[in-house]
Amino acid sequence: MNAEFAAAAGRVRAALEAQPMLQALGAVVEELAAGMCILSLDRRPQVLQQMGFFHGGAIAFLIDNATTGAAGTLLGASQGCLTAEYKLNLLVPAAGDRLVCRAEVVKAGRTQTVVEARVHSGDKLVAVALASIAIFDLQARPDVAERSPAA
Amino acid sequence: MNAEFAAAAGRVRAALEAQPMLQALGAVVEELAAGMCILSLDRRPQVLQQMGFFHGGAIAFLIDNATTGAAGTLLGASQGCLTAEYKLNLLVPAAGDRLVCRAEVVKAGRTQTVVEARVHSGDKLVAVALASIAIFDLQARPDVAERSPAA
Amino acid sequence: MNAEFAAAAGRVRAALEAQPMLQALGAVVEELAAGMCILSLDRRPQVLQQMGFFHGGAIAFLIDNATTGAAGTLLGASQGCLTAEYKLNLLVPAAGDRLVCRAEVVKAGRTQTVVEARVHSGDKLVAVALASIAIFDLQARPDVAERSPAA
Amino acid sequence: MNAEFAAAAGRVRAALEAQPMLQALGAVVEELAAGMCILSLDRRPQVLQQMGFFHGGAIAFLIDNATTGAAGTLLGASQGCLTAEYKLNLLVPAAGDRLVCRAEVVKAGRTQTVVEARVHSGDKLVAVALASIAIFDLQARPDVAERSPAA
Repeated sequence: MNAEFAAAAGRVRAALEAQPMLQALGAVVEELAAGMCILSLDRRPQVLQQMGFFHGGAIAFLIDNATTGAAGTLLGASQGCLTAEYKLNLLVPAAGDRLVCRAEVVKAGRTQTVVEARVHSGDKLVAVALASIAIFDLQARPDVAERSPAA
Repeated sequence: MNAEFAAAAGRVRAALEAQPMLQALGAVVEELAAGMCILSLDRRPQVLQQMGFFHGGAIAFLIDNATTGAAGTLLGASQGCLTAEYKLNLLVPAAGDRLVCRAEVVKAGRTQTVVEARVHSGDKLVAVALASIAIFDLQARPDVAERSPAA
Repeated sequence: MNAEFAAAAGRVRAALEAQPMLQALGAVVEELAAGMCILSLDRRPQVLQQMGFFHGGAIAFLIDNATTGAAGTLLGASQGCLTAEYKLNLLVPAAGDRLVCRAEVVKAGRTQTVVEARVHSGDKLVAVALASIAIFDLQARPDVAERSPAA
Repeated sequence: MNAEFAAAAGRVRAALEAQPMLQALGAVVEELAAGMCILSLDRRPQVLQQMGFFHGGAIAFLIDNATTGAAGTLLGASQGCLTAEYKLNLLVPAAGDRLVCRAEVVKAGRTQTVVEARVHSGDKLVAVALASIAIFDLQARPDVAERSPAA
């Protein structure tokens, strides 16, 4: 179990850190556990909107990645996952120096996993989200598998 | 009416183009009409995920901005707007060289405007979304108004 | 093709009309086409909230059924479908004598179909929605297949 | 504070119990606390779909009411609220004899309150949801106020 999780977590981290967009925005994979993923994002020009708040798109980026990462920690080596859909509520303009997004699996399924996420700036809750992550066998999706950074 | 729309469209374009994140990702305000906004995003490393597809977060960025922009074209000079929430469905992995996001107001309200959006890569539909944009009087929101780039 | 659609439409209609809840609320299957489903609901006490408007739950009931019905029209006899998730925006209090919900498939997939829906009261748009419908082989889901009214 | 909450809770309970649809489906207001609402729904024909599971529309009905009820417990006598939008994920077919929906306010605002909800059948989680409830002064919404059962 632990070895399985360690392998899955390694694949999730590798996939996230291989994203040119994650590198460009400067997001960091802070923590992975079974069914859980935490990402952080420091204040930088490339994640801000016109008033100096974190951009809603940067918050969505964290949610998209953290929810998929949380689902990914529960997968085997022959499986892959992609974000199918999510909904986010932006609760307040996101000021502050650093966002932390924590995603946790609500229900893991064979073909779909549902994940919720919360984004904080310091101790202030700035966004909540609910996501569906599509799960598939990599051999059934050659279009995706052949592009996998682990391949 | 035309003068009012022209002024509103000018404020929307100025707000969007003043976003450091929009500049960093290279998104472009293609078209504004009353209740409508089109943005484009060319393929560049900083908008890609690990398999070379456009990142879901980049798609969400377009949707966040285009839906808010569409709502903004219907506002007066004393009003502001902020994204309250949205839901997006990512239909297929977003390959191709360029995304175009078109947002259209479904229902404009005094305190909330509902907007839908579609994102295409070429003629392929890659995402659909539904958003609520909060509308407010700028004088009632000094926290936001004082940060406005138009102020 | 026409015979296939006719068979699929027959299964959808039979499934919807076999619902005790549809019968109790008095909803009607108005029209089915490939990837499209229209339901109506007349004003009756059992679909109203405390102010006399149609209840948001009655609107959600229409959306849930019409989106699943629209997805179902595209399935073969060995496939089934269940609503995975949806999001609805209630645009105005739903007054009037009759609601009509029209759902159309946005993207049909092997394991998930995305459908959008609009609900009108007369010519007034009262709600919009976006739904994901899970598609599966009935033999892979004995828990669902054995309960199917068509079985 | 306690007196204020008791008055608000009384208004919420009266509004919910005055709904013809709640009466017809047989839903029960189980508990109200500041920012929290629990409803239950026993298995009955009028809440079932064709396979004998609770209908997704019945689950949405509970979510719609419980989230609005939770928001309502935080309002003053001169305020009203209406569901603006929600998204729900149906995690498994809802079997069992009784559903319990618990809604809790995530963020209370002046014009909008965000609420999350979970629906259980026994100890099984069958649905999760995220909702936005519009808050308004009753005197600003005569169309709604004059229909209020408390008026």
